[in-house]
Amino acid sequence: MDYFRPNVTAMAGYTPGEQPQTTDWVKLNTNENPYPPSPRVFEAIQAAATDRLRLYPDPLARRFRQAVGQVLGVDPDGVVACNGSDDALTILARSCLDAADLLVAPTPSYPLYRVLAQIQGCRYEERPFQADGRLPERFTTGAKLAIVPNPNSPTGSFLPPASLLEQAEAATGLFVADEAYAAFAPADCVGLVARCERLVVTRTMSKSHGLAGIRFGYLVAQPRIADVFLKVKDSYNCDALSIAAATAAILDEDYYRSVADKIRVTRARMEKETADLGFTVEPSHANFVWIRRKEPVEPIYLGLKERKILVRLLRYPNYGEGLRLTVGTDAEVDVLLAELRRLV
Amino acid sequence: MDYFRPNVTAMAGYTPGEQPQTTDWVKLNTNENPYPPSPRVFEAIQAAATDRLRLYPDPLARRFRQAVGQVLGVDPDGVVACNGSDDALTILARSCLDAADLLVAPTPSYPLYRVLAQIQGCRYEERPFQADGRLPERFTTGAKLAIVPNPNSPTGSFLPPASLLEQAEAATGLFVADEAYAAFAPADCVGLVARCERLVVTRTMSKSHGLAGIRFGYLVAQPRIADVFLKVKDSYNCDALSIAAATAAILDEDYYRSVADKIRVTRARMEKETADLGFTVEPSHANFVWIRRKEPVEPIYLGLKERKILVRLLRYPNYGEGLRLTVGTDAEVDVLLAELRRLV
Repeated sequence: MDYFRPNVTAMAGYTPGEQPQTTDWVKLNTNENPYPPSPRVFEAIQAAATDRLRLYPDPLARRFRQAVGQVLGVDPDGVVACNGSDDALTILARSCLDAADLLVAPTPSYPLYRVLAQIQGCRYEERPFQADGRLPERFTTGAKLAIVPNPNSPTGSFLPPASLLEQAEAATGLFVADEAYAAFAPADCVGLVARCERLVVTRTMSKSHGLAGIRFGYLVAQPRIADVFLKVKDSYNCDALSIAAATAAILDEDYYRSVADKIRVTRARMEKETADLGFTVEPSHANFVWIRRKEPVEPIYLGLKERKILVRLLRYPNYGEGLRLTVGTDAEVDVLLAELRRLV
Repeated sequence: MDYFRPNVTAMAGYTPGEQPQTTDWVKLNTNENPYPPSPRVFEAIQAAATDRLRLYPDPLARRFRQAVGQVLGVDPDGVVACNGSDDALTILARSCLDAADLLVAPTPSYPLYRVLAQIQGCRYEERPFQADGRLPERFTTGAKLAIVPNPNSPTGSFLPPASLLEQAEAATGLFVADEAYAAFAPADCVGLVARCERLVVTRTMSKSHGLAGIRFGYLVAQPRIADVFLKVKDSYNCDALSIAAATAAILDEDYYRSVADKIRVTRARMEKETADLGFTVEPSHANFVWIRRKEPVEPIYLGLKERKILVRLLRYPNYGEGLRLTVGTDAEVDVLLAELRRLV
């Protein structure tokens, strides 16, 4: 079918995690927040669900930009509101990557980066972490764009922000810290953006703010870098209801701090109990726990699924496989751990 | 700044119409529907605004696809739900257009097509309509992708669907009927998609369904063509609230038929009265009226704006300028016409 670009015809596309549309699952496969969004979110949606939905939203989502500026202490003009952080990553790829260009990311990490490179039709290299968890030597060499998820998925590992700033300073292209899971980590890179114009941070409200359903993310860059992304994004990439919801959410800091605290406590229990069951467990800085073992993990994945518990089985070339267990409520985690005990 | 692709650095970006965030304007500049969305839309938003917003939406928006299939009599597997029809057009560009490829559109038409070509870094040609309003001879020659808005903006002109099917059959690449305004026209191309795999129809809920604020559009293609677009779109491009709202809207056919009828009646009055004022007026098949005159129209645009009436001043190379007046409520149109009388 030659209506399409050869790279598009050749690629398989990204396979998102399973999203059953029924409510009878213990769903621990796509790192959703187990706690409901802030009550302020529902008030904001209510207030925005008026006849004004017939009008276009603010193309810049200025209320949201201002809120991010206020909460994170960054320049609002450097904030770009996005339709999920997938949209942020898409905008980055479309802004930076020509056919001859190189995108690099560490491995194992988020498989979407490869797909974005395939859609751009550019080169892609996965460069393995060092044995001690650091980025490889010359990680950004030759790259027009480098992306490092921090904390990383599936491992939950975390690199100190200062080390990422050093990488960005040494890079020739843009350096992206994909901070989808930063709410569960000890520190983040947002405050460093003002110090290096190559450093761009992407965020999502999906995990931290329990809002995967509304599709909202953002990126933080220096304003003159952000201005380029504004040219490339769809003019009205964020809708009126999600702008209202995301703005209310990001301003309710106390609520979400207590949610993140609860998740960290449950995470510690999951780490300990899965290690006690004999799994190899990485210390996690995100809202999931990555467990491995010598034997194949697929029987466990399937055994859990049979009991209506969904976790994520992930496999990486030259690294191997494991199960990524999203941190759920304590009740969900009790069910998960009971089944894991039965299955190992 | 060589962090970016040269085509991205060079381009200006698309300038959307002004979107004042205050309520004291008679806003007739971006073809929003002057009537509120169906009451069913608000019920659907209410029902979807629950704790389940913490979960990812259905990446395929299957409820919406089914509803489109039912209402339009098309194969649901050929429907791709999009974050506005801008997203549909972006997906088309990313799927089809490599640097060496050519995108064609008629002129005057929607300036976004050029921007999409600039972002892809491909060639773009605007091919002028013939004097009688038909597409030019050999319109699609050499094109990997051809886009024809039907009805067209800014003129409101309309081509018979059979003539577009002929174009699609003669094309070598995909042929897109951008049917943003089809709800106000006498016919559309959706029923013809099954007859030609090169024919793709894009739609938006913004104008027809009074839902510019929720960002929802879709494309209709043959399923094996649609499958390629599914690989290229962001996995979760549509959020849970807008899927619910759009599904409720598209199923409330009676409500929206009566809205479109009212708009057509007001449109006829606007056509007549602006012609009586001495403007050159095209017969419109959309929810706006395009008026021109020998003298510059900017003084009228500015005079209206001073009275808090926003219309759209548009200029096209080799064609000239005019004012595009969105069809408002009868009360809004009374205000507009009174001011126009004063200004001419």
